[in-house]
Amino acid sequence: MAGPVSPLAPASFPTLPPIAGVRLAAAQAGVRYKGRTDVMLAELAEGTSVAGVYTRSATRSAPVLDCQQKTGGAATGRAAFLVNSGNSNAFTGRAGVEAVEALCAAVADVTGIDAGRIFTASTGVIGEKLPHERISAKLGELTGALHEGALEEAARAIMTTDTFPKGATAEIEVGDARVRIAGIAKGSGMIAPDMATMLVYIFTDAKIAQPALQDLLGQLTDRTFNCITVDSDTSTSDTLLCAATGASGVDVEGSAAFADALEAVMLDLAHQVVKDGEGATKFVEVRVTGAENDDDARKVALAIANSPLVKTAVAGEDPNWGRIVMAVGKSGAAADRDKLSIRFGDIVVAENGWVSPDYREELGAEYMRRAELVIGADLGLGQSTATMWTCDLTKRYIEINADYRS
Amino acid sequence: MAGPVSPLAPASFPTLPPIAGVRLAAAQAGVRYKGRTDVMLAELAEGTSVAGVYTRSATRSAPVLDCQQKTGGAATGRAAFLVNSGNSNAFTGRAGVEAVEALCAAVADVTGIDAGRIFTASTGVIGEKLPHERISAKLGELTGALHEGALEEAARAIMTTDTFPKGATAEIEVGDARVRIAGIAKGSGMIAPDMATMLVYIFTDAKIAQPALQDLLGQLTDRTFNCITVDSDTSTSDTLLCAATGASGVDVEGSAAFADALEAVMLDLAHQVVKDGEGATKFVEVRVTGAENDDDARKVALAIANSPLVKTAVAGEDPNWGRIVMAVGKSGAAADRDKLSIRFGDIVVAENGWVSPDYREELGAEYMRRAELVIGADLGLGQSTATMWTCDLTKRYIEINADYRS
Repeated sequence: MAGPVSPLAPASFPTLPPIAGVRLAAAQAGVRYKGRTDVMLAELAEGTSVAGVYTRSATRSAPVLDCQQKTGGAATGRAAFLVNSGNSNAFTGRAGVEAVEALCAAVADVTGIDAGRIFTASTGVIGEKLPHERISAKLGELTGALHEGALEEAARAIMTTDTFPKGATAEIEVGDARVRIAGIAKGSGMIAPDMATMLVYIFTDAKIAQPALQDLLGQLTDRTFNCITVDSDTSTSDTLLCAATGASGVDVEGSAAFADALEAVMLDLAHQVVKDGEGATKFVEVRVTGAENDDDARKVALAIANSPLVKTAVAGEDPNWGRIVMAVGKSGAAADRDKLSIRFGDIVVAENGWVSPDYREELGAEYMRRAELVIGADLGLGQSTATMWTCDLTKRYIEINADYRS
Repeated sequence: MAGPVSPLAPASFPTLPPIAGVRLAAAQAGVRYKGRTDVMLAELAEGTSVAGVYTRSATRSAPVLDCQQKTGGAATGRAAFLVNSGNSNAFTGRAGVEAVEALCAAVADVTGIDAGRIFTASTGVIGEKLPHERISAKLGELTGALHEGALEEAARAIMTTDTFPKGATAEIEVGDARVRIAGIAKGSGMIAPDMATMLVYIFTDAKIAQPALQDLLGQLTDRTFNCITVDSDTSTSDTLLCAATGASGVDVEGSAAFADALEAVMLDLAHQVVKDGEGATKFVEVRVTGAENDDDARKVALAIANSPLVKTAVAGEDPNWGRIVMAVGKSGAAADRDKLSIRFGDIVVAENGWVSPDYREELGAEYMRRAELVIGADLGLGQSTATMWTCDLTKRYIEINADYRS
């Protein structure tokens, strides 16, 4: 399963600061993979608010259903996140529910945390019984190893087809105090809104009540994880959890600076997921402008970002703008061929219903050789805009998915 | 561009009977390809009704817009179809419209057919000016060569990435008389409803007024060409034309036998398009049952048939039913994990929210080695059903589309 690291990967994992009130650990439970960590535990101190956003799949996994039930309310007691890779515990019937209950009970037993504040997630193959006792057997080791500096270890333990661990951080100053945010994510295939298929854990020492954090997380998800697509397929396990420990003592409710910082962390992680898209060699930003309304803008952006023909053209470094016109046309959004214009970066490719008089194929071909591209489509009809991020579609995607059981 | 013939291709092109009132010819106009035919002309006798169904793309091509304008009405004079491959004359602005007008005028000039009864189509690269004068230059040669037995020649002339020409036929007896139907199609990539991306020409010597033929064609399209998908991308050029010359003297308005025969020809051609899906090695029928309503049934069928993860699993002969569960979940249709069941052919794979107790991986693996597969999903919620046909997603699809300018 281990393939070469994505050419779009960051040079190194970022230095993530410890977040006061958060301790983590990873272990090798042997759920499916051998010779690597596959389970992570995060322990969250008294005073923590937990907010969550989950897949809307009608066949979502047992852990997702359990987390949804536990999300909300005013509780701020200690909490824990327990995540394994290698098996998604999805479509596992009654046994799946029992596995989640057994794991929560075991964590509660070892840590003394209320089972209602224990959030599990599982990622990997669908439809196979989760060997939860292998995970429970590691809880003593995990709790013994908990420490504040283990974010990278945790990021590595939750990887499946990911070729690099994903982390991001931001910091804001409020008066003399400092608020830190650090997040980790996994995700590589089965990535599509809503919401982008992945596991994401964000930790902050900010102080914020659960309802406010939940609202903020939902809004920011729409602008970040719900704006990426790798393959249009939506996971049964998507889980985004944000824990605010309050340990900084800084109340951030209504703080624009905090919202911006949290959005930056989420966007960074979302981009990293696309950059680790299975087989990806190009990172593509699709910018739609001039749509009649927001819904149309998003439809067009998604049609371009998900089009196999656009994505294979990008893979082949072919400035095949005709396929972008095709994708606009099929989107279902209002479009007028003669008002539509297409750009590669700043290069005007097509306008007024035809190729631009100044456009030359060499300009497009040169542009397509970049690792990071911007495809622009202006519909010329209104003021609405949408941005989506995607990657190219290569033979490596086929290799990974024709062979890997996910 | 010429690759190996699809492993799913029929052993040979079928023997198509001449259709009284229809004469065809093909020629090498050098629009884009060298050393092969790339233009076909069909001449339809006095008394012909012409019905058409077209792409719903908002960026449809100039010839499609022209054909739409000409479709309908009570006219039954002589008519002609002129089709070229290699250039789609789509997104070519004013020049595109002028090319269509010039071609229609030229055909009218050479044949004496009213320009309002001349239907053109173009298929191939988007956004490049159609060198229509190369086609006009061949009209003398084409009209001189017109003959009733040229359906296969015509099928070959309209191919683009197709690896085999597509034809189908049916015959019904009405009393002592005989009604014949013969059709040809092209299509391989950019295939998705609505409607399946392709050019299709069906000829019959049946007698039927335009409005009745148009109604019938629309209904049958929903059960045939609108039920296939190769890559979820919708062409700007999709055109299905049916010409009924009336030469048999048999009035088929309201005839169930004729409708069945026409549907059989359309379904045969639709299946051939999927079997020539770019890079296809497997032909997959997706059968959804037990949906709450027709819309949901279709959503689920389409989600499965378009899922890159399902299609790569089929390519890898991996009985990865978890991905089918995923596709059901993402479809947006009402689904209940615990009522859903999944089948490979007659093999019950999953039911009651989990893998079936009788299912063994070897059974699924054995089944997946077939060239033609049936994936069944029963939602267990109602009586609605839908069937879609698709193919697998292989590296060859990427090769074809990363390199070919379509």
